[in-house]
Amino acid sequence: MQTQPNVLCVADASGKRAVQRCDFLAHPPFSDTPDGLFRSYLSPAYTATVKQVREWMEEAGMHCRIDAAGNLIGRYEGLTPNAPALLIGSHLDSVKNAGRYDGTLGVILGIEAVASFHAQQKRFPFAIEVIGFGDEEGSRFPVSMLTSRAVAGSLDTLPDVQDAQGTSIQQALLESGLDPAHYLEASYKPSQVLAYFEAHIEQGPVLESKDHAVGLVTSIAAQYRFKVTMKGMAGHAGTLPMHLRQDALAAAAEAISCIEKIAQSGPDDLVATVGQMSVKPGAPNIVPGWVEFSIDVRAGTENVRNKAAETITQALHEISQKRGVEMELALQHDLSATPCNPQLSNVLAASIQAVTGQPAYKLVSGAGHDAMIMAALTPVCMLFIRCEKGISHNPAEAVQDEDVETALRVMCDFIQNIPSEKAA
Amino acid sequence: MQTQPNVLCVADASGKRAVQRCDFLAHPPFSDTPDGLFRSYLSPAYTATVKQVREWMEEAGMHCRIDAAGNLIGRYEGLTPNAPALLIGSHLDSVKNAGRYDGTLGVILGIEAVASFHAQQKRFPFAIEVIGFGDEEGSRFPVSMLTSRAVAGSLDTLPDVQDAQGTSIQQALLESGLDPAHYLEASYKPSQVLAYFEAHIEQGPVLESKDHAVGLVTSIAAQYRFKVTMKGMAGHAGTLPMHLRQDALAAAAEAISCIEKIAQSGPDDLVATVGQMSVKPGAPNIVPGWVEFSIDVRAGTENVRNKAAETITQALHEISQKRGVEMELALQHDLSATPCNPQLSNVLAASIQAVTGQPAYKLVSGAGHDAMIMAALTPVCMLFIRCEKGISHNPAEAVQDEDVETALRVMCDFIQNIPSEKAA
Repeated sequence: MQTQPNVLCVADASGKRAVQRCDFLAHPPFSDTPDGLFRSYLSPAYTATVKQVREWMEEAGMHCRIDAAGNLIGRYEGLTPNAPALLIGSHLDSVKNAGRYDGTLGVILGIEAVASFHAQQKRFPFAIEVIGFGDEEGSRFPVSMLTSRAVAGSLDTLPDVQDAQGTSIQQALLESGLDPAHYLEASYKPSQVLAYFEAHIEQGPVLESKDHAVGLVTSIAAQYRFKVTMKGMAGHAGTLPMHLRQDALAAAAEAISCIEKIAQSGPDDLVATVGQMSVKPGAPNIVPGWVEFSIDVRAGTENVRNKAAETITQALHEISQKRGVEMELALQHDLSATPCNPQLSNVLAASIQAVTGQPAYKLVSGAGHDAMIMAALTPVCMLFIRCEKGISHNPAEAVQDEDVETALRVMCDFIQNIPSEKAA
Repeated sequence: MQTQPNVLCVADASGKRAVQRCDFLAHPPFSDTPDGLFRSYLSPAYTATVKQVREWMEEAGMHCRIDAAGNLIGRYEGLTPNAPALLIGSHLDSVKNAGRYDGTLGVILGIEAVASFHAQQKRFPFAIEVIGFGDEEGSRFPVSMLTSRAVAGSLDTLPDVQDAQGTSIQQALLESGLDPAHYLEASYKPSQVLAYFEAHIEQGPVLESKDHAVGLVTSIAAQYRFKVTMKGMAGHAGTLPMHLRQDALAAAAEAISCIEKIAQSGPDDLVATVGQMSVKPGAPNIVPGWVEFSIDVRAGTENVRNKAAETITQALHEISQKRGVEMELALQHDLSATPCNPQLSNVLAASIQAVTGQPAYKLVSGAGHDAMIMAALTPVCMLFIRCEKGISHNPAEAVQDEDVETALRVMCDFIQNIPSEKAA
């Protein structure tokens, strides 16, 4: 790897140490389960993790606080007190049986970046705040990205939901020493913030397949989720001739092939997935009379997503009509695309080129991230880090030290080069 | 409907009465469940039904016995004592939440036919035995067609199986006053039997769609059942680009469409069904890594079935290979076709023509019947009766009185015209 002259590198802060710290946080007391990492919002493992990460933040020269939503925030002051902050964040919570780097690596890398500036006593016209968000995954309560929504100010009320044990968010906050009545006070005013930056593992195989250590996220995908029900006529597999069938599964099979073809023939950032399917009555000797399946459609822009969804909808209607099968298609989720800020992304692209010697590889994030929420507060940009085979939400999640080192250098370069005025 | 001069019709025995008797047997004490008919082998409902049907048999001039397997057998002697018997049979047991006519109607029609001969004091060179089989459906013990196997002599030992309550067949027999040690003595010697005839509702929509009250069964279909497993690679629905996917469900969908096309392009008696399917992990936002599904292939001859199965197997291998998906295809059931005896079928065809004034409509039985088992003992032939929309194994199962009357007349004509020497 080429080392550029303007890239900071100190003995202590390193990509390798960031990886080691994530590995260190993969076991109890930082995991609620001894086998397989699980760290859910406000759990004992979450509290232990916040305590540990806070120590690292303090070592890196930050002043720390836990905000009203239970997020851990370390602040590295700028050249002047109370300057607006560049927020560097990601999440500390995890799914069940999680990987070690999803979320956590972005927080730790923020600390490493600050640690390297602190070691050089380098400060900027803006402050830097590293945020470890408490809930991105929604793995405890049936809501997700709750804590970035609190910080972004896009939460109207604290949802009245319970975890699997029947504990409400309110109770969980009280047990963590937080007052639910003050939850919304976690929000920032736009004037307090310069921008939001997030580094995250890609959770997909594109960077690996293109041989890039890091990638520039151009946007977080727009997403539709549909539930499709097809209702034909069940019948005896032996006595119902082919030409008299209204086979709901045969109709669904044609639909799935069609969905796949539509996505394959679209632009690279378009994906469509049928991930869930139920067949009834579900016996080998009965022609299926009822099938339900999900469709997930994502693309970098609403335009591409919507066009694909329209084509899919029309194709499915034609298939159902042709086969005498009733179809219902219900929209279940509609998430708009979150474009990353072009001005910040240009700076990040330049940093990637400076560090790697190659033009920045640009890609759409098909997965959701806190950055998507933070975009309501401030301009955002995102850096993806290559992960092995694209595996995530799985203990096999893996990154290379060198790639994380590259990411750290890119971040440091980026921080030194962003304009100290808010991007347009 | 046209009435032919040689067709017997007496005041008491009628198709209408046969339907009424089936309806009468649809409720407790003849059903083990108050809502929805369920009559399982050796249950209290089965015992009550045998008692009632035995009364009808005796009224019709038959001498009755319960054989060692619990089957009810009524014998109407021929012109000479101990003459070989024409067996007219079907089953008295039912599935859960059953229709009223599946099986039972064939037994009751046998009684009606004998009743009409008895009323005219008409006897034949052969005896007639009407058999109500105790287990065809296998709805109590995990074995099916157990009692026709006992009668046909094709059972080597009584299987050592239990019902859902843990009662063994042995215990159930003892509780019904039968000695399990004598079970195999239910078997007939071929010399005791002239032929086996079964009337049964079609359980399919073909006769209805072709506008025939009854149909001549040419054979009971050969059947294969396969279990197919496809193993691709699970992945994030948002981050895994289309061209890097090994989507097990997309592969299965292509396979299902292919199976349907192969069956559609074959002869009319070929059917292929994917009735059961599981998808894993089975979340809307995860590309499926694993799919399992069943394939049921049936045709009137092994030749047609085997050729279709070969074409399907080859197509599925090509799909898997093309998509980088591992496939396992396991044969789970292999039932040979049972051709109906041509000589007897010719007589039956002539009776159908005599009664209906139309050439006999010929079709393959895609479902299994006791006749399939009895073919090991003696030549068999079968008459199908039209049922509404082909619905069976369902309380909505329905027949028209007129169609059942036609069937009864056909049976009576057939019995009077079959050769008294065993068919070749």
